[in-house]
Amino acid sequence: MSTLLNDLKESIIPVDEKVRKRAQHHIDQLFKPIGSLGQLEELACQLAAIYRTMKWQTGRKKIFVMAGDHGVFEEGVAVTPKEVTTMQAVNTVKGLTGVAALSYTTGVDVEMVDVGIDCDPIDGITNMKVARGCGNIAKGPAMSYDQAEQLILDTANYVKQVIDRERLSVIGVGELGIANTTPAAAIVSIVTNQLPMHVVGLGANLPSSQLQHKVDVVSVAIALNHPDPTDPIDIMAKVGGFDLAGMTGAILGAAAMRIPVVLDGFLSYSSAMIACMIEPNVWDYLIPSHQSAEKGAVVALEHLCLKPFIHMELRLGEGSGATLAMPFIDAAHAMMNRMGKMQDDGVDLPSPA
Amino acid sequence: MSTLLNDLKESIIPVDEKVRKRAQHHIDQLFKPIGSLGQLEELACQLAAIYRTMKWQTGRKKIFVMAGDHGVFEEGVAVTPKEVTTMQAVNTVKGLTGVAALSYTTGVDVEMVDVGIDCDPIDGITNMKVARGCGNIAKGPAMSYDQAEQLILDTANYVKQVIDRERLSVIGVGELGIANTTPAAAIVSIVTNQLPMHVVGLGANLPSSQLQHKVDVVSVAIALNHPDPTDPIDIMAKVGGFDLAGMTGAILGAAAMRIPVVLDGFLSYSSAMIACMIEPNVWDYLIPSHQSAEKGAVVALEHLCLKPFIHMELRLGEGSGATLAMPFIDAAHAMMNRMGKMQDDGVDLPSPA
Repeated sequence: MSTLLNDLKESIIPVDEKVRKRAQHHIDQLFKPIGSLGQLEELACQLAAIYRTMKWQTGRKKIFVMAGDHGVFEEGVAVTPKEVTTMQAVNTVKGLTGVAALSYTTGVDVEMVDVGIDCDPIDGITNMKVARGCGNIAKGPAMSYDQAEQLILDTANYVKQVIDRERLSVIGVGELGIANTTPAAAIVSIVTNQLPMHVVGLGANLPSSQLQHKVDVVSVAIALNHPDPTDPIDIMAKVGGFDLAGMTGAILGAAAMRIPVVLDGFLSYSSAMIACMIEPNVWDYLIPSHQSAEKGAVVALEHLCLKPFIHMELRLGEGSGATLAMPFIDAAHAMMNRMGKMQDDGVDLPSPA
Repeated sequence: MSTLLNDLKESIIPVDEKVRKRAQHHIDQLFKPIGSLGQLEELACQLAAIYRTMKWQTGRKKIFVMAGDHGVFEEGVAVTPKEVTTMQAVNTVKGLTGVAALSYTTGVDVEMVDVGIDCDPIDGITNMKVARGCGNIAKGPAMSYDQAEQLILDTANYVKQVIDRERLSVIGVGELGIANTTPAAAIVSIVTNQLPMHVVGLGANLPSSQLQHKVDVVSVAIALNHPDPTDPIDIMAKVGGFDLAGMTGAILGAAAMRIPVVLDGFLSYSSAMIACMIEPNVWDYLIPSHQSAEKGAVVALEHLCLKPFIHMELRLGEGSGATLAMPFIDAAHAMMNRMGKMQDDGVDLPSPA
């Protein structure tokens, strides 16, 4: 691991457990049966612990959509044309995609970051292109070890700068990359030590008759590249992708800036696993959004110990689920700051027995 | 059934299935894999069918919180002091309760309706008080048959007027009523034909050592009053409560005005069951919000064929879950109206196989 990555790791410190406890104590005094707001209470405590204060402000929010193409597309693991990565990147900037439309109503900014789309640089899209698509993991590594480390560092640093410049209070991650459920499944398979058949799903409407082929491609990718399961950079380099590495960087960047990062679906789970392997303190900064409908989601979420708030069988990606969860951040804030306390009414409610 | 209730029933007509199909066709052309926005797509289609147009407007939203006290409180089925119903009604008007705080961030109005709190009328609270608390269902009916029918009619008509006057585009329901999970469990037990032990839960932190007593109280209430399981008014009158009847009325009122009604948690499920028995067309107007953490919720939701969007182990009630789901209404609207169509990019994506 390079000195720079080590510096990034060291900048990601644990959240404040004392503030988390104080927040729970505060919540237990509010006008409601103790514990009755369930995971919204846990979220509020987590936010307080992340911000290291019970008096945090909810400010601007942004989804970083990391976009890149995948060499493994040529193995026939996706039925969507590869050009759709480029098209949807452009359409997002125009406000016409799912993440763009939904973010309009949730009041969330969207920034499209090209980390490796197979196209020339596009106006309005942040250019951090490593190459025009990563390698085909069924035939070799997605990228070199140095490329993986550098991209994670670069995206982390870029996201840190944007958080600082735009005074973001929370970020979300999303991705665009036709065929990317294949490398994500490979990562989840390796990190959770589950066979590919248990984590490979249909992605964007792959016919179920082609599922076994996709499983085989993931198996080949792992067997051929044999990534070191204890080295997160090696896993990302050998069976990952630029978009997934970019999300890992964004997650690390948010944690380094001590703000929460809202995950999206299955792709983001794989990026979060790599981020947590790089620096376990990252976990405390992760906020789940939706339970992805992709097959490997259950295994991945169990490994991550995350319980998403939204169950709507979403499987679009792009950060669409992350943006739908953003109102819960505001709701947690409102609960903490707007509700009255029982002691003001002289009432004492019992705790769960 | 009275002529007036029959008139209300007849005013609740089926939603427009043709518009639902047109909406799905529109959604299938948007920039995303077919079906990939899951239940958000279903919600958008339902909204289109309810509004009978694909070009509906998302306007004002309001939660009606129906508040009333319960005679069965005296059986020791709740550990929260009975006075808390009154206190929380006042605190809601002050903006200090869960539903009030959360509705502030979701941009939803809250109206507190006193259908039978054990207190004098309170300024700022809509007065539709039937009595100061309903009867103890362990010793007799909650109310008379005529009272139940009249309250359902009155609240339906009142909610209809408010929808019209305030041009509401969607309403939610909530309740306040210490001990109300007991009558709600009785209703769910009767309607689903499940034994009380399978639907009675801990409500607001009842010690688990007292759960069997609560089950016994529900069993006694059903045995003693033996409501006609085919007569929804009889069920509500004998083992229900004013708050639950008020929510049934609000649900019927929304459907009669052809706007959607967002349910809250377990209490609202019982009210919705009664509303659907009164008029099955109501079902199409119901929008679930959260999967209540109360024990009987799974049985109730299965009976109602509803799959809530939010899984946060909420069990506060008041309409707090309903308000948290309101942003999904706006999200469905944004998906329908803001996303681009694939044909504009000359792309044709395959359907799920």
